[in-house]
Amino acid sequence: MTTPLTVAVVGAGYWGPNLARNFSSSPDWKLQAICDLDASRAAALAEKVGHVDVHTDLDELLARDDIDAIAVATPARTHHAVVLAALRAGKHVVVEKPLADSREHAFEMVREAEERGLVLMADHTYCYTPAVLKIRELVAEGALGEVLFIDSVRINLGLVQPDVDVFWDLAPHDLSIIDFILPGGLRPTAVSAQGADPLRAGKSCIGYLTVPLENGAIAHVHVNWLSPTKIRSMVIGGTKRTLVWDDLNPQQRLSVYDRGVDLDQQSIDGSDRAASTISYRLGDTWSPALPEHEALGAMASEFATSIRDARPARTDGLAGLRVLSVLEAASRSLDTGGAMQPVETDELAVVS
Amino acid sequence: MTTPLTVAVVGAGYWGPNLARNFSSSPDWKLQAICDLDASRAAALAEKVGHVDVHTDLDELLARDDIDAIAVATPARTHHAVVLAALRAGKHVVVEKPLADSREHAFEMVREAEERGLVLMADHTYCYTPAVLKIRELVAEGALGEVLFIDSVRINLGLVQPDVDVFWDLAPHDLSIIDFILPGGLRPTAVSAQGADPLRAGKSCIGYLTVPLENGAIAHVHVNWLSPTKIRSMVIGGTKRTLVWDDLNPQQRLSVYDRGVDLDQQSIDGSDRAASTISYRLGDTWSPALPEHEALGAMASEFATSIRDARPARTDGLAGLRVLSVLEAASRSLDTGGAMQPVETDELAVVS
Amino acid sequence: MTTPLTVAVVGAGYWGPNLARNFSSSPDWKLQAICDLDASRAAALAEKVGHVDVHTDLDELLARDDIDAIAVATPARTHHAVVLAALRAGKHVVVEKPLADSREHAFEMVREAEERGLVLMADHTYCYTPAVLKIRELVAEGALGEVLFIDSVRINLGLVQPDVDVFWDLAPHDLSIIDFILPGGLRPTAVSAQGADPLRAGKSCIGYLTVPLENGAIAHVHVNWLSPTKIRSMVIGGTKRTLVWDDLNPQQRLSVYDRGVDLDQQSIDGSDRAASTISYRLGDTWSPALPEHEALGAMASEFATSIRDARPARTDGLAGLRVLSVLEAASRSLDTGGAMQPVETDELAVVS
Amino acid sequence: MTTPLTVAVVGAGYWGPNLARNFSSSPDWKLQAICDLDASRAAALAEKVGHVDVHTDLDELLARDDIDAIAVATPARTHHAVVLAALRAGKHVVVEKPLADSREHAFEMVREAEERGLVLMADHTYCYTPAVLKIRELVAEGALGEVLFIDSVRINLGLVQPDVDVFWDLAPHDLSIIDFILPGGLRPTAVSAQGADPLRAGKSCIGYLTVPLENGAIAHVHVNWLSPTKIRSMVIGGTKRTLVWDDLNPQQRLSVYDRGVDLDQQSIDGSDRAASTISYRLGDTWSPALPEHEALGAMASEFATSIRDARPARTDGLAGLRVLSVLEAASRSLDTGGAMQPVETDELAVVS
Repeated sequence: MTTPLTVAVVGAGYWGPNLARNFSSSPDWKLQAICDLDASRAAALAEKVGHVDVHTDLDELLARDDIDAIAVATPARTHHAVVLAALRAGKHVVVEKPLADSREHAFEMVREAEERGLVLMADHTYCYTPAVLKIRELVAEGALGEVLFIDSVRINLGLVQPDVDVFWDLAPHDLSIIDFILPGGLRPTAVSAQGADPLRAGKSCIGYLTVPLENGAIAHVHVNWLSPTKIRSMVIGGTKRTLVWDDLNPQQRLSVYDRGVDLDQQSIDGSDRAASTISYRLGDTWSPALPEHEALGAMASEFATSIRDARPARTDGLAGLRVLSVLEAASRSLDTGGAMQPVETDELAVVS
Repeated sequence: MTTPLTVAVVGAGYWGPNLARNFSSSPDWKLQAICDLDASRAAALAEKVGHVDVHTDLDELLARDDIDAIAVATPARTHHAVVLAALRAGKHVVVEKPLADSREHAFEMVREAEERGLVLMADHTYCYTPAVLKIRELVAEGALGEVLFIDSVRINLGLVQPDVDVFWDLAPHDLSIIDFILPGGLRPTAVSAQGADPLRAGKSCIGYLTVPLENGAIAHVHVNWLSPTKIRSMVIGGTKRTLVWDDLNPQQRLSVYDRGVDLDQQSIDGSDRAASTISYRLGDTWSPALPEHEALGAMASEFATSIRDARPARTDGLAGLRVLSVLEAASRSLDTGGAMQPVETDELAVVS
Repeated sequence: MTTPLTVAVVGAGYWGPNLARNFSSSPDWKLQAICDLDASRAAALAEKVGHVDVHTDLDELLARDDIDAIAVATPARTHHAVVLAALRAGKHVVVEKPLADSREHAFEMVREAEERGLVLMADHTYCYTPAVLKIRELVAEGALGEVLFIDSVRINLGLVQPDVDVFWDLAPHDLSIIDFILPGGLRPTAVSAQGADPLRAGKSCIGYLTVPLENGAIAHVHVNWLSPTKIRSMVIGGTKRTLVWDDLNPQQRLSVYDRGVDLDQQSIDGSDRAASTISYRLGDTWSPALPEHEALGAMASEFATSIRDARPARTDGLAGLRVLSVLEAASRSLDTGGAMQPVETDELAVVS
Repeated sequence: MTTPLTVAVVGAGYWGPNLARNFSSSPDWKLQAICDLDASRAAALAEKVGHVDVHTDLDELLARDDIDAIAVATPARTHHAVVLAALRAGKHVVVEKPLADSREHAFEMVREAEERGLVLMADHTYCYTPAVLKIRELVAEGALGEVLFIDSVRINLGLVQPDVDVFWDLAPHDLSIIDFILPGGLRPTAVSAQGADPLRAGKSCIGYLTVPLENGAIAHVHVNWLSPTKIRSMVIGGTKRTLVWDDLNPQQRLSVYDRGVDLDQQSIDGSDRAASTISYRLGDTWSPALPEHEALGAMASEFATSIRDARPARTDGLAGLRVLSVLEAASRSLDTGGAMQPVETDELAVVS
């Protein structure tokens, strides 16, 4: 067994306790400290996870040389400053989603980490669930063939957020998952967004994202705060098989359908296209067993391994940057009534 | 009991037999004849529904003065010619969806019927199912409050059609239903469509339609020929309640949720909007019992009643025209990469 | 193609039309006549299925030498007389379930057929559905291992029958299916039945059957006329896999779970049995694709093949007799407050 | 706000921590101590719930006069001794289910508590879930009419227990719930049990209980450790409505069906009973909204209130005794091959 790495959690609000709990119970990590401007909140969390140190001053925390890494769970608008400070202090960093409040900020963070040879990881927690890890594996090994379409629905009666619209609140989950399962990551050239604010909340409460993918494929995301029924589903159609992920069905989260439409390509070039050139496969359905583990635990483990192996995390800063690039283009599309907007990717190329 | 009206069915292919069977068993109608270019096909159908007359010549049929009405189930591209001829012969007409192959054609048909004081009805069959009739009633009586959003999904492994894309094949169902349940009908000013053809079939096999409605509301339709799982669902969110129609759940097709998000309007005008101004209702769910009847039988009955009462049918020619207006705008949007395209409505105003 | 066999349907009430329609459209059969005491009912059915002959006198029908087989769909209490007459006239016979109104009657029928070398088949229609045929195949090839338990539920708001209780109305379906899928057929030595008549209808409207099987296995059947929700499910647990048949889920009727409990046999003999000697398998789930065909069509085909090959039908008279043996024992158990009652099997041995 | 009552938890194994956590967070209670023979286990739990006292000696604990009540979470075979000691020390007691390892033991405990005027409560936790509280309320207010049948299913791939069979492991949940929702409690005169041990585990792993209720009604319980699919459902059929509780459907746990079978009573007395005397109601379905709270918290609150109001708890010792009476009769029935066995109730009458 190797010596555990040491970590401190910055931010003891909503998500920080989850991070602290997982780092404190991980064999890969030794949780050293909790840092929060609110001393009592930090102290309460510190006691709960085993009497670790308490800090209210970030610089003081970063000055410690017995801390290898920082987990950031502060508000999104502070990620840029906190993360840059941590990187400049030589710490590896994992950041709650979204990576930053703008792709420009995210880009600076990614570059800083790269220049310093430090790991910058996006805490795209869903990517470390057993279901998404399995989907990634199935896509990678070609079980689905080429991806034809991805349709993601994430709706329920949700809290209308004061600061962000439904796209920025919910779609990062869908986009980070799609980025995770596509072999080359999510690298669209354009995106279209349609939103609605029928309650006059001052921001979209219902949103639809369309993301053209390579080779004529398409991804579509429906996010909605106003639905009384909860749906968390994703369909990934491939040339060989189609996978349905229904996250609210614990007895059968994943179903892989060996069914599909095959097109006789030759007849299409001719003039006599007809329905008869289409054939169907109506094969079996298969639902793989999934191991049971907590996603955040797997995330903590991946963070440790990427540091030890000096390699990018599976959800690295670039993944976070790609998600932000799509979200920013979506916001621009929304402002222009849904017209396709280019996704900025220049800097992505520079970095990677 | 009033004397039954008399009807002939034109077209003995896929849909004609369904029409013939329903007209022949309807107390409102006496089925007189079947007309088809293919004499043997017409004869086979005529025998099956009770030894009615057979015609292969449309003009001959229309010249008969013992026929009040014509039901048209020929290919869409022929609707314009057949219907105009029937109207000019003084017959009332019901037409299989889509009403015509273009809104221009449809407009001519609507105008012709209006000028002659004849009923022109679109056979939007789904509108006469017990579920949709109930939805229309609930919306009309205000049970849902104002409509905030409509989200319709109609996907399954479907036949890739030789002549039409997935929008023209499937979306007429969703659009005619939405037109039917909205008190003023479906009258959007613009529409956006996103499609994908990942199999290179030469047309969209996956489609997403966005239709902004009045007062910031939105309708969205997802049609898909490539999904291995079948979904036929529609969510109609209102200010008071939200209705979910799951057509594949015969034990509970309709669910009305007394749940929703309420916005404290005053706080929105102030500068300090916050999540605390939102409140949730988490009330009961209610599933109305639905009568059992065949939709086509109810359609035939409505056709008779509208003729007798000399009033437009509930799915009249204008309803068919509105659906075509949205579909044509959707096709234009598709050609321009999904940009919002105005829905032509000038002629609608003229007519109605 | 061989010459079709010829058949007449006796009984034009509820089930006769289904039989007539399937025989008339089967390539294996030529439907010759309909026989019913009610001449107009017989005539109406005869016209509908292609203008076949009409008889109101059974003897007259049976005297015809251009009829190979008889399909009986008369009330259960008449099966004995009708079938014996048909067999004595040299006709092969298929009989709607239940085979007879008592096992004694059934036994006479089985013996008569055997002595004359004629096919006597029970129309256990469910056995010829794609789902049940697949289950039989899976059990036969050992996919489930040894059967440990069968739990069958068949409940919904049903018609309280005037003549029979819920056991005799619904359980023949479950019992005939269990008989069909167990490699040796259903041959229990005893059966226990619990019933309830809370509405004072004069007979059980809710019933539970317990049937001990070989090697400590158990079958249990729940039939109920009073449930507002409809359930048609059967779970077949095996040493290797467990199969769940949910007949109301057309998208996934069969699910085969590669999950189970394994017992370390050695530890059981010792004195220190403990939970630690149990191990679980949590493997994948698999849902086989099922062909689409009408069960009655497959039944008609099996009837023809068994006649041609001079072999017992897969649901032969003995299968019908075994079902009746269990039902009669169940009725005796019911009369004695649920005590286990022996299932009479002597005659079964004599015959087979 | 009244002063909190004081409580100690005895037993720090599987269930004790849940009790300790709920008592420590309850406004009605002050948790004073944890007692367990294993000092380190007691200390770990004591620290986790707020540094309460630790005891390894029960007498020492019971000698404290700053403790009003004891919560017992030790193995079932020790309940009798621990509870009697606690009652004799003047403490109110709540006991994890089952109340005792025999009804004789339970009876002694009930009598002891009664003689001393102390509260003895059975921790039938499920009874305090929002769903069961609602069911009890609906039955009590007559929403279902008279109960006609109760069908409970509790199956999944479960741990084969070393000490108890599937009846004693799982059925206490079903029986205590049925006892809780029936206005007069569960007071059958007899019970029949059928079990199977197809894996040769030395005890029933599959079990069916039949419990005749008053007026011809029936309750039936299916418990099963060997099912790969998990079901937790209960159907309660009444003369007016039928309720279905599906505990694995968080979006609609309770459904109340306004459907049923009505019997025309007059025609039944006559000689001409027929299907036509039956009528169906096919009304709406209604799913009541349920509040969200943890069952154990509500149990703790009920324990406090029953002590303060000097009244029996809603799941008092007698409820626990009634459950044990049924279980013991079930075991006897099992030994006699499923014959109905009388449920001993003499002592129940004496006590209440």
